[in-house]
Amino acid sequence: MDRVIQKLRDNHDRYLEEMIELLRIPSISPGKPHPEALEQAADWLEARLRRAGIEDVEKLRVGDRSPVVCGRKHVSDDLPSVLFYGHYDVMPPDPLEQWQSPPFEPELRDGELYGRGTADDKGQLLMHLNAVEAYLEIKGTLPVNAIFVFEGEEEEGSGALDELLDTHKDRFAADVAIICDSPFFDRDCPSVCYGLRGIAAAEVRVQGPNSDLHSGNFGGAVANPAEFLARLINDLKGRDGRIGIDGFYDDVLELTEAEREAYAALPFDEDSFRNDLDVPALYGEDGFTTLERIWARPTLEVNGIGGGFQDAGSKTIIPSSAFAKLTMRLVPNQDPLKILDLFEEQVNSMAPPEVVVTVEKGHIGYPFIAPIDNLHVEAGKRAMEKGFGSEAYFIRDGASIPIVTSIQKKLGATCLLLGIDVPDGKIHAPNEKLVIDNFHKGMEMIAYLLEEL
Amino acid sequence: MDRVIQKLRDNHDRYLEEMIELLRIPSISPGKPHPEALEQAADWLEARLRRAGIEDVEKLRVGDRSPVVCGRKHVSDDLPSVLFYGHYDVMPPDPLEQWQSPPFEPELRDGELYGRGTADDKGQLLMHLNAVEAYLEIKGTLPVNAIFVFEGEEEEGSGALDELLDTHKDRFAADVAIICDSPFFDRDCPSVCYGLRGIAAAEVRVQGPNSDLHSGNFGGAVANPAEFLARLINDLKGRDGRIGIDGFYDDVLELTEAEREAYAALPFDEDSFRNDLDVPALYGEDGFTTLERIWARPTLEVNGIGGGFQDAGSKTIIPSSAFAKLTMRLVPNQDPLKILDLFEEQVNSMAPPEVVVTVEKGHIGYPFIAPIDNLHVEAGKRAMEKGFGSEAYFIRDGASIPIVTSIQKKLGATCLLLGIDVPDGKIHAPNEKLVIDNFHKGMEMIAYLLEEL
Repeated sequence: MDRVIQKLRDNHDRYLEEMIELLRIPSISPGKPHPEALEQAADWLEARLRRAGIEDVEKLRVGDRSPVVCGRKHVSDDLPSVLFYGHYDVMPPDPLEQWQSPPFEPELRDGELYGRGTADDKGQLLMHLNAVEAYLEIKGTLPVNAIFVFEGEEEEGSGALDELLDTHKDRFAADVAIICDSPFFDRDCPSVCYGLRGIAAAEVRVQGPNSDLHSGNFGGAVANPAEFLARLINDLKGRDGRIGIDGFYDDVLELTEAEREAYAALPFDEDSFRNDLDVPALYGEDGFTTLERIWARPTLEVNGIGGGFQDAGSKTIIPSSAFAKLTMRLVPNQDPLKILDLFEEQVNSMAPPEVVVTVEKGHIGYPFIAPIDNLHVEAGKRAMEKGFGSEAYFIRDGASIPIVTSIQKKLGATCLLLGIDVPDGKIHAPNEKLVIDNFHKGMEMIAYLLEEL
Repeated sequence: MDRVIQKLRDNHDRYLEEMIELLRIPSISPGKPHPEALEQAADWLEARLRRAGIEDVEKLRVGDRSPVVCGRKHVSDDLPSVLFYGHYDVMPPDPLEQWQSPPFEPELRDGELYGRGTADDKGQLLMHLNAVEAYLEIKGTLPVNAIFVFEGEEEEGSGALDELLDTHKDRFAADVAIICDSPFFDRDCPSVCYGLRGIAAAEVRVQGPNSDLHSGNFGGAVANPAEFLARLINDLKGRDGRIGIDGFYDDVLELTEAEREAYAALPFDEDSFRNDLDVPALYGEDGFTTLERIWARPTLEVNGIGGGFQDAGSKTIIPSSAFAKLTMRLVPNQDPLKILDLFEEQVNSMAPPEVVVTVEKGHIGYPFIAPIDNLHVEAGKRAMEKGFGSEAYFIRDGASIPIVTSIQKKLGATCLLLGIDVPDGKIHAPNEKLVIDNFHKGMEMIAYLLEEL
């Protein structure tokens, strides 16, 4: 094993050069401004997998969507199968002017590589590949069956891969799935993420008069859609942070005492969290801590609200309509489809007779939780501790990665989230970066994981 | 007097041609897209006043604002002085594609003249001028002292004229002011408007975190500015339509029983009002009828609301901030400056500790009411009935014309609002029109008024 680790260390320069090659390809998925770049990135990965000695490398396609690049190294039916997941698509780089160096011309500064996709997810994706390649080179075989799945539309909802998990179940069958697309709890706290929130989106529109009205000639005699929308939003959540939808909390998996104690023991600095946000006070559901609220409690948030006159100055109208875009973050065992139904019923039951209220249901994602006493999860924690040389924490994440739940449900695989991003990694934002030392240690973690599993 | 009326009738064609000349000048004041057109319209009126035999014609200026065109015909210190007010500026014609004929190329269709400014206010302004001219021509003198004041920024708040009313008090001193810039109660209901609402504008901003936040990574742990803004709006008005600002109703002049009876007797069709707006039900302050709510009760309306993501699709953020633009329509004897103070105090007292709430005060206008048992008001009603050959009603208007209050306050003049616009006259909108028969009868009304006063 020492030779595998040494091999990984000897190749640092090559790994960095290769990563920069892949990062230079602007494979943006939302809006697809450079569709050819997505194909180019997929081709690059296909060639790279072949070079690493991976077999059955191919690009699977669903319609005209970005291809899913697959490969595998089957060793023996008696060994566990491990699926290594990553995505080669990236978020748009806007606003460009806020980048210190161009998003697709990666630049190394103080041990951190800056560029779009460094952390999310090209850098983390390559950890898998490099570690498996090194292991294969040194030992000539693997202690597991490896399956690689690199998709190109994670930032757009993973629709193609989700479909392929159904149609190509055998191709992907795995006991464990390793997903490196999440952050450490804190810069120096390697973390195994065992829970994600789900999501359910909806838009509420309040329609009033058939056109904007003069607020002098009509004001006082007709319902104002912006005001009535405000009443709805007010009533959908109490001042105590409890969501006012009948049945909303019915299926919520409550935190265990052990989890609450574990979270309380984490080195979380609430003051600096608040200071970073620059808010006078934090706010959330009564009876829960900040970490509990983010990781294990469901939310209802207004993502956007609009109606009437929004430009500079004043325009004395009653708006014809107003809308709010909302998302609910869900926790195990809430079902987003059921929650959207409850939401719609609640809004309809609250709709006042003076306006027309409509609900448009949006995208959904299921919450995820892995049992932390599972053998594979324990193996992941040990590998992370060996790779990083310090204690690893069990954490959850408040965000949603729908494909994780799909992999868990459709393949029956235990999902391990072993991301090595840092909290200030600026994913989806200007100046996204990867801590190169974490990248190196992350490869060693994967190598150790092969043995541990 | 019959000869004056006959003279007015003989000149119909000339009046229409002259009006069309004036209407072709695109003297838009908001945004001043054609500043030279405002000067051109002022010059046109200056020449027209001189031709009508009016004396001391001149353009008064405040800074680089549109000139106020003035003139007078002083007959005797023993006669009452009557100020004829009008404005030659117009609203922008957008959206252009909704006009059936070009806004500045007036077109006569079915006895109605279509074009920007036909009703608001060039057509109504010329009624004064034509009537006084005809009277002068036939009788050689006037039964009153006449003062003409035509301003060029009514659609921008009448700032220049408001200032001139202070600096040139003697120039404008009048016992009665005639303002024709308001509609009939209904197509066949000539109306003397004796009350207007005032206005007080404000913008409320709720500031949360220093940037938009990922609703997965932060949702549930920090106050959402759009949600907290909604709570504020909800709390500022009860479901019963009562405004929740301490002291807001203290100075409200309550409706008299006579007024309530008079309004109830008006031919107001609530069903067709509701149908025109296409709302499932009307809404307003409990205990008042629709007309009472619009004419004699104060309001608080959201003119616009915004925050966060408003484009198509979904963006899962907690907005950094949210805002609402509000205006309150005020009734006699509310003081808009006092109301703005009360509003600010109320919002500040409601501001929750988790966000930063700021109030920015906006423009104001005072409410107006004339005593309906005043001799001049009665004379106006009689003149209107003679001109139109049918009973005239006393009505109020829910809108605000700040200059009316200024004229009343600064000159001590009784203001008569004798507008001949129709409710579907589309002022400020595409296809603005003037009913030509109303224009003709309106001139006769002014001629009778000279005698009645």
